[in-house]
Amino acid sequence: MKIVDGVNYTNWSRKQFESLKKAKVNLVHVSVVYWEDTNETFKVFKKWEKYFHENKDLIIKIETVSDIKKAETEGKVGIILGWQNSAPINSDLELLECFFKQGLRVMQLTYNNQSDIATGCYEQNDSKITRFGKEVIKEMNRLGIAIDLSHINNESGLEAVELSKKPVCVSHSIPIFSKNSERNISTELMKAVASKGGILGLSLYPLHVKNGSDCTLNEYCKLIEETVSVMGIDHVGIGSDLCTDHPDSVLQWMRCGKWLKVSEETDNYFKKAIWPKPMSWFKEIGDIHNLIDGMRKYGFKNEEIEKLMGLNWIRYMETVLPK
Amino acid sequence: MKIVDGVNYTNWSRKQFESLKKAKVNLVHVSVVYWEDTNETFKVFKKWEKYFHENKDLIIKIETVSDIKKAETEGKVGIILGWQNSAPINSDLELLECFFKQGLRVMQLTYNNQSDIATGCYEQNDSKITRFGKEVIKEMNRLGIAIDLSHINNESGLEAVELSKKPVCVSHSIPIFSKNSERNISTELMKAVASKGGILGLSLYPLHVKNGSDCTLNEYCKLIEETVSVMGIDHVGIGSDLCTDHPDSVLQWMRCGKWLKVSEETDNYFKKAIWPKPMSWFKEIGDIHNLIDGMRKYGFKNEEIEKLMGLNWIRYMETVLPK
Repeated sequence: MKIVDGVNYTNWSRKQFESLKKAKVNLVHVSVVYWEDTNETFKVFKKWEKYFHENKDLIIKIETVSDIKKAETEGKVGIILGWQNSAPINSDLELLECFFKQGLRVMQLTYNNQSDIATGCYEQNDSKITRFGKEVIKEMNRLGIAIDLSHINNESGLEAVELSKKPVCVSHSIPIFSKNSERNISTELMKAVASKGGILGLSLYPLHVKNGSDCTLNEYCKLIEETVSVMGIDHVGIGSDLCTDHPDSVLQWMRCGKWLKVSEETDNYFKKAIWPKPMSWFKEIGDIHNLIDGMRKYGFKNEEIEKLMGLNWIRYMETVLPK
Repeated sequence: MKIVDGVNYTNWSRKQFESLKKAKVNLVHVSVVYWEDTNETFKVFKKWEKYFHENKDLIIKIETVSDIKKAETEGKVGIILGWQNSAPINSDLELLECFFKQGLRVMQLTYNNQSDIATGCYEQNDSKITRFGKEVIKEMNRLGIAIDLSHINNESGLEAVELSKKPVCVSHSIPIFSKNSERNISTELMKAVASKGGILGLSLYPLHVKNGSDCTLNEYCKLIEETVSVMGIDHVGIGSDLCTDHPDSVLQWMRCGKWLKVSEETDNYFKKAIWPKPMSWFKEIGDIHNLIDGMRKYGFKNEEIEKLMGLNWIRYMETVLPK
């Protein structure tokens, strides 16, 4: 069975790459940027070159469709590098190609806040896709960078689907019909994404999910079933959103970035950010097999599980990435 | 009579500083950035240190209210450095204070397009002031950087006035009641700006003005009169928007920045940007005296002319800049 993780923000190390290999994960989209600026981001890619070199027995960088096959042939974990924000671009269209050459293959248009491209999920008003955003979508389509609509506002998301000539993904989210939160995805957007050949990676981050850390395996399987009933069996996958091995300070960084000065007056949501307790059946990447077993017991057919656990993401990436 | 130019984007040189002195200009807000990123902008401030040093017999950098007095005492032209965009900040709140220390004293929240702070005038949908934008306004108020609402969308502008604890300016625009254009300013926003103690600098850039290059001196004086009748005699000034000595390529840079790739398919507005012919009575900064004479002939009282030509801008800057 092919296993693909639609998004993962582990604090990477050889130990973590070994965990991926041991868990028989074929492909992972790894988030490498949240609020970093252009120069900081070039350094992040440099760091990843080192990871790829030092762990070449375990992992391989995925830049093309052929690389996906290569990872399979060589029995290595394919790593797709992506950003959860567009901050490194900073209104400079040409930087997209510069970063594409570094290996950028997935980019969220925005992370919670308004960007110069689109509106984030926690903003009150939605500008939809901006003048620059329209150019960015064209350029991402041209280069072969997947458009990720996680953390976006609803209207911006709908317009992005409409404007993109290639299918878009939502690497990690949960349907609003399951848990009503600004961060989650509307049924309307789920349908739009599916109708254009895109994919939703169901998140395993407790704060996204109904009942949070207490969500049972059975409840999660029911959520998969309900999501499939809206989007179809070919348009749903997993996006674990695992943040393994990061201290709480990293969660504060994710929430506040550089845009918010944390002071005495700042809301505790920002000031006292603490990682949520994981669900008992999904504490680390190896637990993906608990989920697979659970799905089997829940009644999913093998063919369905194969699509949901990996084949859908592989088909999606093969459609979007350069040959 | 005190003369203040609310915004000027001349291609500066000693010759141009001499023109300012000869025209008896007391204070100029100089635009130094449109689309430049953080590093490029630090270099722009470095360039200005050189200008101040090499032309210290003519010009002086204005960072405080005392500097305004100092310029007067020493008989020099005071230069206030500002940006027509927020691109150098790039979602990093702390950069505002870094640039304040370089001398930044005026910042537009956006230039034509959506920024991460507010919506530009040429966007179709207005997000109003964003989460980050609210932090930026607080920080600009705290530091003493004037908030400039030129090139902004109407709803964003109205919310900025409401959120700012200090009066805001619109350094260069024309009322929509005179010329209906997305770039110009609504009566509603004019009234809001005035009601909070702010100022509108009437633009002398032909493309903003009714009848463009053919606008007569008498027509322009009538426009001043009409603007005063909406905002009051204390809230109107001049913002010449002179772009003296720049080649057409600079106009293309202003319009396209880094956000638009110019190709065969690009609209001529972007591709074939050509500076408009100036109005016959306002070709260069020295022609400000044509305007003063014209206003006198039109029937403005001397006391009114003094406010409109300089005292209003001085009062505004004294309210906003650090002591």
